[in-house]
This record gives sequence, C-alpha cells and structure tokens, in this order.
Amino acid sequence: MPFDTMSGASLPNASFSLPFSTMSAQARPPFPAQLTNPAPHHPHWASLQADIEAHLKQTMPLKQPHEVFNPMHHLVFSAPRTTVPALCLAACELVGGHRQEAMPAASALLLNLANAHAHEHLLLSDRARPGDGYGANIELLTGDGIVPFGFELLARSDDPAHEKSERILRVIIEISRAVGSEGLQKALYMENTLEDESDGEDPRHVESMRVVVEKKEGGMHACGAACGAVLGGGSEEEIERLRKFGYYVGMTQGMLQRGLLQGLEDLRNLAFNQLQFFKDRGLDIHIISTFINF
Amino acid sequence: MPFDTMSGASLPNASFSLPFSTMSAQARPPFPAQLTNPAPHHPHWASLQADIEAHLKQTMPLKQPHEVFNPMHHLVFSAPRTTVPALCLAACELVGGHRQEAMPAASALLLNLANAHAHEHLLLSDRARPGDGYGANIELLTGDGIVPFGFELLARSDDPAHEKSERILRVIIEISRAVGSEGLQKALYMENTLEDESDGEDPRHVESMRVVVEKKEGGMHACGAACGAVLGGGSEEEIERLRKFGYYVGMTQGMLQRGLLQGLEDLRNLAFNQLQFFKDRGLDIHIISTFINF
Repeated sequence: MPFDTMSGASLPNASFSLPFSTMSAQARPPFPAQLTNPAPHHPHWASLQADIEAHLKQTMPLKQPHEVFNPMHHLVFSAPRTTVPALCLAACELVGGHRQEAMPAASALLLNLANAHAHEHLLLSDRARPGDGYGANIELLTGDGIVPFGFELLARSDDPAHEKSERILRVIIEISRAVGSEGLQKALYMENTLEDESDGEDPRHVESMRVVVEKKEGGMHACGAACGAVLGGGSEEEIERLRKFGYYVGMTQGMLQRGLLQGLEDLRNLAFNQLQFFKDRGLDIHIISTFINF
Repeated sequence: MPFDTMSGASLPNASFSLPFSTMSAQARPPFPAQLTNPAPHHPHWASLQADIEAHLKQTMPLKQPHEVFNPMHHLVFSAPRTTVPALCLAACELVGGHRQEAMPAASALLLNLANAHAHEHLLLSDRARPGDGYGANIELLTGDGIVPFGFELLARSDDPAHEKSERILRVIIEISRAVGSEGLQKALYMENTLEDESDGEDPRHVESMRVVVEKKEGGMHACGAACGAVLGGGSEEEIERLRKFGYYVGMTQGMLQRGLLQGLEDLRNLAFNQLQFFKDRGLDIHIISTFINF
C-alpha cells in the first residue's frame, strides 16, 4: 500500500523533511550514533515526553545523599531524548488504554536508555570525551541505580486486586530482553567494536551497522510500542502489529541518523501497513502516525 | 536470650571459629571489602550454592556472540560467592516452600551481586587492578546485561494461572530497592569515598563503615532472606523475622570481614532471637542457623 494513501488528510505534517539536525548538513553523522534523536520537536512527542518527565520527577525526588541523587537526576534528565517512551504511551492510547497505564513502562524504558547512554559515555572515555561535571565512578554507579529503579516502578504499579499483574510481568520480560545481552547490550558491544574497525565504505560494515540499528533503535522502539499495547489492554494482534510498527519506526530513525538512506521508503511503507489495521477498525491513528510521518 | 540455648544439639558446628580466611591471620582485611566472603565452606551453603549455579548454567546457555556471552559466564561464575542467594533458598524452605520456588530470586540476587562486583572492579581501575582477560568495556556491558536478565528470570517464573504474580512482583520490588540507589549502590558509593579518605582509627570512619555494612552485607542478606520467605509462602511475621535474621547475618559477616569485632556477640544473639520464633513453632532451624552459627 503506497504511503500517501495511508497518511490521510488528518496528518498535521505530511512532508518528508528529515527530522534530525545531524542530517540537515547531509554530512556523515557522528559515529557512534547515540541512541537518540535530537529533542523530539513534534508537538505530540513533546507533550508525551513532558508527561513522562513530570512523572519521573515526581517519583524520583531529590534525596540524600546529594552525591548520589543529584547525578541521578542529571543523568536521567540530561540524557538525549528518544521517541521510545513517548511511543509507548501513544501505543497504549491507540488500543484504548489510558496514558497513565503505560507510564511506568515508559519511565522504565527512559531510565534504561539513560543508563545505556551513560555507559556509552563511559565507553568513550578513552576518546575525546565531553565533561559533564561528574566522574566516571559516579556515572557508573548512577546507571546501576536507575535500572533497578525502573523495574521497581513497574512492579509497584500493580493494582491492589492484582488484575494487572500478568501484564506487568510480561512488560518486565519485554524490557529485560530488549535491553539485555541479546538486545541493546549486544548492539552497544557491536557498535563499540565497529568503531574500532570503522570503514564506512565497506559493504560488510554497512550490514553490521544495520544489525546494530535492528537491535538498538529498532528493538527498543518495538519494545516500547509492544509494552504500551500490553498495558493498554490490546489484543495479541494489536500488540504484535504495534511491535512491528515500532520496529520500522526505530529502523527508519536509526538508518537516517547514520546516513544510511537506502530502503528507507520501504521501511516507512511497512510501518504504515501496520497502522492500516487500526485505521480499518475506526481507530484514530493521528498521533501514532506522527512517529513515522515526520 | 543467650546464644547457647538457641543453637541446640542439632547444630553440626557450634564452635566460634572465624569463617573467613582473611581473618585467620588476624590482619586488617583488604580494603575495600568485596561484597563476599570466601567460598562458603559449610556443606549446606555449598549445596545450596551449587543448586543455584546449576540453575543459572541451565538458564544462561552459551550463545553467540561469544564475545558477549563468554564474559557473561565468566563474570557470573567467577565472581566471589556470597551467602545471600543460599540464604534466600534456606529461608524459602524454612517457611515450608520448595527450594525451586525461590530459585529465580536467588539467581537474580546472584546476578545483581556479580554486576556489583564487576563494577567495584571497574572502580578500582585507577588502582592496582588484577587482570582477568577482559577489558573494562566488556565488564561494563556484561554487567548491564546480567541485571535485566535477573529480573527477566523472576518475571518468567510466574505460573500460567498467575497465582504467584503478587509474590513475584513483591520480590522484584524488594531486590530493586536492595540493590538500588538507597541500598547497595549507596554503599558502594560511600565505600569508594571512604577509601579515598581512609583513616581506620577515626571513630567517624568506623561509624561510616558500619553504615556501609548495613546497606551492603546487611541489606543484601535481609533482602535475600525476605525474598525467600515471600516466595515460600511465609506469613508477614515470618517474612519480617527472616528479614531481620538476614540483616544480622549480613552485619555479622560484614563487620567480621572488616575486622570490626565490637558488638558481634550482640548481633549473633539478635539473629538467634529471630530464629527462636520458628523453633518455638516446631520448625527445623538446623540449616538456616548455620548461616549465623559458623
């Protein structure tokens, strides 16, 4: 199905402008690409992101010792933003859930991504490394603190009747796998290795980069969308379609960020194909389609 | 209640020999104390530990890429052993549960402690640091992989009828808090700071060390025992008594390891007081008492 028949008149911004500042100069983006795109500029993303950050500020108050909690706040709120947590909320709402139901999952995803960013930062320590006022020791321990906090937020979100327990446990498994040694950690390892042997022109390098993007941006967005659908009470088909949608969204972002433009149109079409299922059932795909139709 | 009325005739080894090799020479132990005691030499500990390691070897098979999974095995199985996971199983059995019910929690505790050990190791990198064949980058990412794997093991252990969901979610919260920024991470941060300002004779230093032990050995053993009791179906009173027992066990170990011998007898008595509750109800405290009656 061609893209333009999917996007529909309701979409606020159907242009194909590249969303990443790194792309505007058409230069090869900095390598390794951080697991991020510049601050989401789309109003829907920004609104969802603001809700998640407000939730985290509320649940993660400043505490003693300041030496531990100030860097934690710094690490969480200064980490480059990704669209993963916002997509989690949007998927939840698409299947009829309330945004708040997906908030703990969106928060856990944001915290895990902030930890990954901090550790990417540590991996760069042998190279030119921008200072941020905190030492490597603090960065290391801070990351260690926020990952379990994310799982705690999820586990705590169970209702007294334990009706949500099954969904929450499923989401804990989803996030653990996405960020674990066969997911995000594998991508970070591969990216770190690729950097050491970097030859951007080698076709094998491009193929390896694609695998990195699959595990990193692709896998994390797939996880975010699936978790939102699970917590919003989506059917198995809805969950799997949103997982695929998230995967294509992440792949598109990751490939764009690395200047790998081949096949992008196909990825977009695949993403919209997943949304057609929801549109056909009369659901409002307006907000979720902005994640691919930037 | 005096200790000797508690230990009973059934205890295999009621002597007060110090269990740690670092103590045998009566020298000040190496600093910072690792979150460990030398390999548990008591037959009950060793048996429980062997079961946990067999479970982990089964659930964490060697996979591709070897660059990621070999270091993961190495990190998990070469990390110094602690009595935390074994205590988790023993607490589960004490309250009438089956050992297997607490296995995912024991595994998650072991994985979190292995990560903490790896990161302690990284924190020592500016100092004399023993080589282990893997670079700092691998250690960093490996730790990041095994923490979510521990939470995944727990979440996966739910039964199809979801009757255990509530207990599992509670254990996820318990472990997240114990290892998080107000628990183990805070202790590691404090210990790292203390090392830089080390003056073993200063009373304030001794008091700070005690806080470290409370969060580290005390908090982790308290968590292990409480999680075992939760998963074994213990009552709230049983859970809280085992949490206190674990705390005193950990405090005793941590103080001993650092050569802080004052008040140890009181800690032991407090630990045995908790066990008296179970003994009075006709439960067999033989195995669990070996954790304090070494």
